[in-house]
Amino acid sequence: TSRPGPDLDQLADGIRRGDRAMLARAITLVESRKADHQEAARQLLQMLIGETGRSLRIGITGVPGVGKSTTIDQFGSNLTALGHKVAVLAVDPSSTRTGGSILGDKTRMAKLSMDRGAYVRPSPSAGTLGGVAAKTRETMLLCEAAGFDVILVETVGVGQSETTVAEMVDFFLVLMLPGAGDELQGIKKGVLEVADMIAVNKADGEGATRARAAASEYRAALHILSPAAADWTPPVVTISGLANEGLDTLWTEILRYREATTASGRFQKKRADQQVHWMREMILARFHERLSRDKTIRDAISRLEDEVRSGYTAPSLAAAEIASLLSL
Amino acid sequence: TSRPGPDLDQLADGIRRGDRAMLARAITLVESRKADHQEAARQLLQMLIGETGRSLRIGITGVPGVGKSTTIDQFGSNLTALGHKVAVLAVDPSSTRTGGSILGDKTRMAKLSMDRGAYVRPSPSAGTLGGVAAKTRETMLLCEAAGFDVILVETVGVGQSETTVAEMVDFFLVLMLPGAGDELQGIKKGVLEVADMIAVNKADGEGATRARAAASEYRAALHILSPAAADWTPPVVTISGLANEGLDTLWTEILRYREATTASGRFQKKRADQQVHWMREMILARFHERLSRDKTIRDAISRLEDEVRSGYTAPSLAAAEIASLLSL
Repeated sequence: TSRPGPDLDQLADGIRRGDRAMLARAITLVESRKADHQEAARQLLQMLIGETGRSLRIGITGVPGVGKSTTIDQFGSNLTALGHKVAVLAVDPSSTRTGGSILGDKTRMAKLSMDRGAYVRPSPSAGTLGGVAAKTRETMLLCEAAGFDVILVETVGVGQSETTVAEMVDFFLVLMLPGAGDELQGIKKGVLEVADMIAVNKADGEGATRARAAASEYRAALHILSPAAADWTPPVVTISGLANEGLDTLWTEILRYREATTASGRFQKKRADQQVHWMREMILARFHERLSRDKTIRDAISRLEDEVRSGYTAPSLAAAEIASLLSL
Repeated sequence: TSRPGPDLDQLADGIRRGDRAMLARAITLVESRKADHQEAARQLLQMLIGETGRSLRIGITGVPGVGKSTTIDQFGSNLTALGHKVAVLAVDPSSTRTGGSILGDKTRMAKLSMDRGAYVRPSPSAGTLGGVAAKTRETMLLCEAAGFDVILVETVGVGQSETTVAEMVDFFLVLMLPGAGDELQGIKKGVLEVADMIAVNKADGEGATRARAAASEYRAALHILSPAAADWTPPVVTISGLANEGLDTLWTEILRYREATTASGRFQKKRADQQVHWMREMILARFHERLSRDKTIRDAISRLEDEVRSGYTAPSLAAAEIASLLSL
């Protein structure tokens, strides 16, 4: 009675061959909200699990105006010129774009979107950060199965999105504007703490001196924040995405990071920990879905939150009432 | 057939009268792991909910050796001399002390533990941070109902305990050692970000100059980390808990904070948000308990985590399997 589902074997084979139409179809399945599509996506990912994990996963963030698109477009093009296959994904929970349109990204990344060695995919359309991130993670796995060996995950830095992206990549790059002291004020809490490298962009022409000054400031700030790892001190470099300057150093540093953390064992451990973390996140997401699915529970939570907020009901009593409704 | 539970009306009345024996008995109930005690504690808290919330809740952290006990002992004594009733609680998930013993705290806080205007209670005994924090939060409510108008919640700074304590208090004070630049290296990630004030301790005798230098460094660090609030810039002061110097300024600043944030509405909003947050935390805690209570589920999670960690099973598939076991 229902339409036949997509042929998963055919999809999996197509992805393994690097067929872009098949990859796009699989991503659509991953991004779908329909229960049968989600079930199919889970089966497909499981079929391809052995082909995943073979890329270098790089997260990139920076405030609007920092030159993120220009830099990614140029950096990605340099990498495809070196023979790499580059996928550009995004986590943007504020996105109002519909799932299918990549017009915005085609305009933003003129070179990469025409590049046969690259695949540019916009953020899954608006949803919770957790939901958007989960879809991007699974798209990342599909891209790896399709042979992409460098995945760039871009984020705009809304809410907790940097932390979320940092938790799904091997290496997290923070792009900064030159502007020294004053700019430091605008650094979002927690961003420096997850940075594996800071690149001060727009270090070209007259901007070069200011960029170097800014780099010194950021270096001092990182020093104060004392990153934990023994095998890596986050470097601060100056680049120009527009003039294609310093992007070779960027890549060299990323490879040096992979080498150092692979030698220490942290690279593999971080990946394994991330996978378990994703699983736990998804179990929690299911639990939160459960809380909002059922009207009785939704109404009870809403009423109890109001009572707790205004001080009429003790949080412990309210929690016990919800737990009992959920048979926990 | 079972022993009669404690008489909750009697307990509630005793607490309202400020009866310390009754307060201690109620706290024991809150800290108990027995289901019937927990149920009784919830009922008791609900009976007293109207009498809670009337204190100024102050969190205090600092590394071992910073002089936390000495400072709290002196600061609390100053406050009781001003006519305040001061309760000192603690969140120490690493505590190996048994629930009842306060010998350690009596030794640590010689003045306060003899002070009729003060009540010193050690951390609930070892458990998860969330569990320890939940018990301390409820003990705080009981102390408020018993008429304590200043609650000092001390934490040793293990793991995420500072953040957890910051989420249960109105004001979060970070004690620091003098030592300037070098000491900054040791600041734990996230601690400065939740600080409403930094006090550099041991600013007495020959330490005074070093403490002032350190205060300048911390001021610069706070400046870089740019706290969000428009109504409050976290001050950095120098104190000596031992010599009772600067503790009056500490209190003046805390009162100034309450005034400023009450005027802006943030004080009340933060409290209300915290209550709702506690409720959500407790619902999640119930869910996590559910995950570990049942052997079938525990075993499935353990097996799936291993499979996910080693890359054999996709996180989404593993999560779906657990969700199905839990009927989510």
